[in-house]
Amino acid sequence: MSSLNLILTPVQKDLAIVESIMHASVKSQNEDLASALDQIITSGGKRVRPAISLLISKVLGGPEEKIYFLAASVEILHSATLVHDDLIDGALIRRGIQTLNAKWSAGATVLSGDYLFSCSAKLAADTESTRVVKRFSETLSIIVNGEITQLFHGPCRLDRDEYYQRIYAKTASLFETCAYCSALLCSDDPKVHESFKTYGREIGMAFQIIDDILDFTGDQATLGKPVGNDLHQGLFTLPLQIYTERYPDRKFVQDILSGNCIEDNENIKELITDLVSTDAIRESLNVAKEFSARGIRSIESYPTSEEHTSLIDLANFIVDRDL
Amino acid sequence: MSSLNLILTPVQKDLAIVESIMHASVKSQNEDLASALDQIITSGGKRVRPAISLLISKVLGGPEEKIYFLAASVEILHSATLVHDDLIDGALIRRGIQTLNAKWSAGATVLSGDYLFSCSAKLAADTESTRVVKRFSETLSIIVNGEITQLFHGPCRLDRDEYYQRIYAKTASLFETCAYCSALLCSDDPKVHESFKTYGREIGMAFQIIDDILDFTGDQATLGKPVGNDLHQGLFTLPLQIYTERYPDRKFVQDILSGNCIEDNENIKELITDLVSTDAIRESLNVAKEFSARGIRSIESYPTSEEHTSLIDLANFIVDRDL
Repeated sequence: MSSLNLILTPVQKDLAIVESIMHASVKSQNEDLASALDQIITSGGKRVRPAISLLISKVLGGPEEKIYFLAASVEILHSATLVHDDLIDGALIRRGIQTLNAKWSAGATVLSGDYLFSCSAKLAADTESTRVVKRFSETLSIIVNGEITQLFHGPCRLDRDEYYQRIYAKTASLFETCAYCSALLCSDDPKVHESFKTYGREIGMAFQIIDDILDFTGDQATLGKPVGNDLHQGLFTLPLQIYTERYPDRKFVQDILSGNCIEDNENIKELITDLVSTDAIRESLNVAKEFSARGIRSIESYPTSEEHTSLIDLANFIVDRDL
Repeated sequence: MSSLNLILTPVQKDLAIVESIMHASVKSQNEDLASALDQIITSGGKRVRPAISLLISKVLGGPEEKIYFLAASVEILHSATLVHDDLIDGALIRRGIQTLNAKWSAGATVLSGDYLFSCSAKLAADTESTRVVKRFSETLSIIVNGEITQLFHGPCRLDRDEYYQRIYAKTASLFETCAYCSALLCSDDPKVHESFKTYGREIGMAFQIIDDILDFTGDQATLGKPVGNDLHQGLFTLPLQIYTERYPDRKFVQDILSGNCIEDNENIKELITDLVSTDAIRESLNVAKEFSARGIRSIESYPTSEEHTSLIDLANFIVDRDL
């Protein structure tokens, strides 16, 4: 059993229920669509987001069924945005398997994502809380705004604030939502809502920074996508920002600082090799650990329980993945 | 003042409020996106759908503000699906102006539609009714399912049942929703919900049949898109179905009955000229009138009022547009 599975032990049975709700939700009259969506759901990651909703509900003693709907809704919203992302990026592989985009026309891919949006909205409404639905719609608008800003600003930008805004929109906003909405459904206390919202957001920021580090240090087999993918897409992440700040004299840095992209495959390889030999990776990791620690601090004061320990362990695990 | 504007007199002031809610709703941090969406909203049709929600709420005596949110939500959902439709169809013009798709990359267009979905979901949640949100998400799934089925089934199909399913998914489902949700917010009586749901669905079916007739009989200036657009896209609508049933000996009919598309521009023109010289148009109009009459019958028994008269007049107007 992996260490993540161990951490999620208190909610493994619940995760299986969420899984079946997700599969039931994406059933469609159209067989081709139904089977494609079923495959997307089956191949879908480690369920960290639903696990966060479930763990928080157990810490706060929440209404079981509504949390299942919330958890399924969060994960399907995530899948929906990925389907459209892959189309926009022209990505052919995600999590080691072919994207919908690689198999279908652009039209069918757009519509499949739209269909997943409708499934996610339906499940959000099944929580019977319009506050949850509002938060969901706001999250989708944050995610989309982030992507559009990225499209319009163009590639190869080095601004640190912009980077944080981007990873908040891309990743942390949804982590925040799965934590916040769980607290909304379990408690009437705005302070409780705020502390779990902070937990979700901060570990979400940490999660994305680690993802960005892995794009330099990982290998294709573990990542399920090519190494250096971000650089190939003109996406300058934290490790590169730290590297350019600390090592202005290295081969490609002046070029990058002048606003240029690194496009040649061999140059990207050379840049990555040099970058990982510096302390840019360790420094990025430290930043991720600061986010994770802030997340832990915001929920530390809640009574100890198996599930509470899992939330702390999860925050630590996120910054301790195979680097 | 056009006759439609006359019919909608009792809700003109409310429509202006809905309009401002729509504009406020699509505001975004990103200026390019905000201005593009603002243009989409400004150029957006005759507001028949919001007007239906508003008129019904006045007949039933509903909660004003929630109906405004509902009406704005319906219309933005409609715009969102159009943005993705235009992308999928490669349409460059809608309502006489350039589509987003004609100006922007596919990626930006996908994301703009997604952003509109999030605005629509937020407004649906502002009605504070999860039943409304559920109905909205179901409607989106019906619309998308219809389009995906059309994509997978391929073009140039003559099946009458399939045609009705298609226009229900494409148009009548959203008419049904704007009527049904208004009734949901104004009354607790399931019989009331059902009668207005039927009204919305039936006049929605009539509306789309008339649209399909206009594709043969209209001109580009009035339509805001080229005549024969459906045939060019391999979309066989009611007039063509009636024509092929009644005139198996005409030039292109055997070809069509064998499952072929009419692709050549000159052939399409010739086919249209012949079709409009037959009774296929009148017969299609009769079918539309039957739908419209069923819609009227379902709400006939409600007390007479200015707004009730407008609902009846609207049902009649829909089948009496410039043909």
